[in-house]
Amino acid sequence: MAKQMYTFEELYTIFSEELKKQNFSKSPKELYEPIIYTISQSGKRLRPIFTLMACDLFGCDINKAMNQAIAIELLHNFTLIHDDIMDEAPVRHGQETVHMKWNQNLAILAGDTMYALAYKYALNAELNILPTLMHTFNNTALEACEGQQMDINFEKREIVSLDEYLLMIKYKTAVLFGASMHIGGIIAKAEDEDIEHLYQYGLNIGLAFQLKDDLLDLYGQTANFGKKTGIDIIEGKKTFLYIKALELADEETRKQLTHHYRNAHPDREQKIADVKNIFDQLNIEDITQKTIEDYLNNSLFHLEQVNRPKENKLILENLAKKLMFREK
Amino acid sequence: MAKQMYTFEELYTIFSEELKKQNFSKSPKELYEPIIYTISQSGKRLRPIFTLMACDLFGCDINKAMNQAIAIELLHNFTLIHDDIMDEAPVRHGQETVHMKWNQNLAILAGDTMYALAYKYALNAELNILPTLMHTFNNTALEACEGQQMDINFEKREIVSLDEYLLMIKYKTAVLFGASMHIGGIIAKAEDEDIEHLYQYGLNIGLAFQLKDDLLDLYGQTANFGKKTGIDIIEGKKTFLYIKALELADEETRKQLTHHYRNAHPDREQKIADVKNIFDQLNIEDITQKTIEDYLNNSLFHLEQVNRPKENKLILENLAKKLMFREK
Repeated sequence: MAKQMYTFEELYTIFSEELKKQNFSKSPKELYEPIIYTISQSGKRLRPIFTLMACDLFGCDINKAMNQAIAIELLHNFTLIHDDIMDEAPVRHGQETVHMKWNQNLAILAGDTMYALAYKYALNAELNILPTLMHTFNNTALEACEGQQMDINFEKREIVSLDEYLLMIKYKTAVLFGASMHIGGIIAKAEDEDIEHLYQYGLNIGLAFQLKDDLLDLYGQTANFGKKTGIDIIEGKKTFLYIKALELADEETRKQLTHHYRNAHPDREQKIADVKNIFDQLNIEDITQKTIEDYLNNSLFHLEQVNRPKENKLILENLAKKLMFREK
Repeated sequence: MAKQMYTFEELYTIFSEELKKQNFSKSPKELYEPIIYTISQSGKRLRPIFTLMACDLFGCDINKAMNQAIAIELLHNFTLIHDDIMDEAPVRHGQETVHMKWNQNLAILAGDTMYALAYKYALNAELNILPTLMHTFNNTALEACEGQQMDINFEKREIVSLDEYLLMIKYKTAVLFGASMHIGGIIAKAEDEDIEHLYQYGLNIGLAFQLKDDLLDLYGQTANFGKKTGIDIIEGKKTFLYIKALELADEETRKQLTHHYRNAHPDREQKIADVKNIFDQLNIEDITQKTIEDYLNNSLFHLEQVNRPKENKLILENLAKKLMFREK
């Protein structure tokens, strides 16, 4: 009989409890308050749970992966704090962002401190796997910075190709999903080939996850998604939807679309409706959904290649599907 | 005959050449331009040279310590970029700071990237010393963040004790000097006891170095120091001079001094002269110089304890003295 795998919900509870047990109340308290505030917010904890799941998949005690899971959650939250400054975002997870609640300088420094704390946790590993772990962790941090810079660059550019966009979301978002699985596999001392497939499973979920975010911004259920639809259009964000639409549109429609994105409109709802109308004509919702499914299938393909019993992989299979068919 | 040691100047040249050889021209170029700009500025390179000197002291090939020396220089420069944002500093090493030359968001992200690059270099080490190296490196990064927060806290506080001030400069400045020596010693596989003495040598130099900075701000030669004297007074910075003066002053003088620091004065030069007058009455220059010499002596005491021939330690002895008796 195959080993009973931890469910997502179980891992969520176990991880949240572990995170709560960590003592971040250090001195100077002004520095650690925003850190405690940030990590006590109830995000989805997807990335650390990925690490625990990958570890569990190979029959390894998940507690062995706990320090790495915490490291990944800290790294992720550090990027959020700094990204929120750069994006001037007022709210995250329904609460004030750190730079709004305190101030920008503290948000810079608390982010830097979380980054160092992330490495501190990541360093707690067996010697023989430490270099591989640290290189994976470090490369992911570097790529996240590069992805954020690409995102900033794209804001100022008129034209962004689909390939460029996909590379940006790969670096900014997807590599951390990939690395989360990768690290769980390293800790479980899985075969290199299996670890690579796990990485690809995570990476493809990450790409699909971001495209799903793009899609939900306009086609999501407002109530579920917890924010108004069409924000990306109002902010002129060049998402997959917009870039794909430009690619497919005729000359005249392209002009209309770029005009909408370049200029403010007195009636916010009208602007969203106009753009949505263009997207609908070009069948953007279906095309995006189809692309998401392609990434999902890539992800499941790589999962299939992992040399573990099918029953044990079912939880990862279902998680991938659940994330893609979410309505928020 | 004792081995010929590298001089400071030789190590400066070797390190600068090595740093130049590193390829930081990566994509996206917007992100790496400020990194190249920052590290191509000719700072003193004290910290990486400390690492190379410590390595050399134990007869170890300095090339073995090169990656760590670069890591330390990157870590130091990352803290400068972020500190300059927080301090709203317009100039560093006679050139525009990154947030002024480009913008604040880029300064945040370029700093984050240098931080990751620092770890990338630090990770290039033999497996058996990797954990110790990484813990030293990581703790130093954390303490630098904590020291910066203390510094920020002190700006808003009326009273800062001398002990608090010394703890702040220890974390913000001195631990990196200590760690630089420490890391060189680890790479040379020196005895633990010797490494600890080297750490204390560096730490005490770091403390003396900062107090010397405090002193030079008011009592330095303007031409040599490259900036006007009295800046700390104009900015109301609670340096060693100010805190010591408050400690020694009578009630009336203390009132005058806090009044000067709390309020703007229409005549900048007059304000500096008034405060200097108080400092002079209280003999602050000599007291500070004496404290610097105490730290210097501590530093030299620890150097003496290091189990290496006296001739080999002469370069470190002279360097400590040179840094303390500098006029800029």
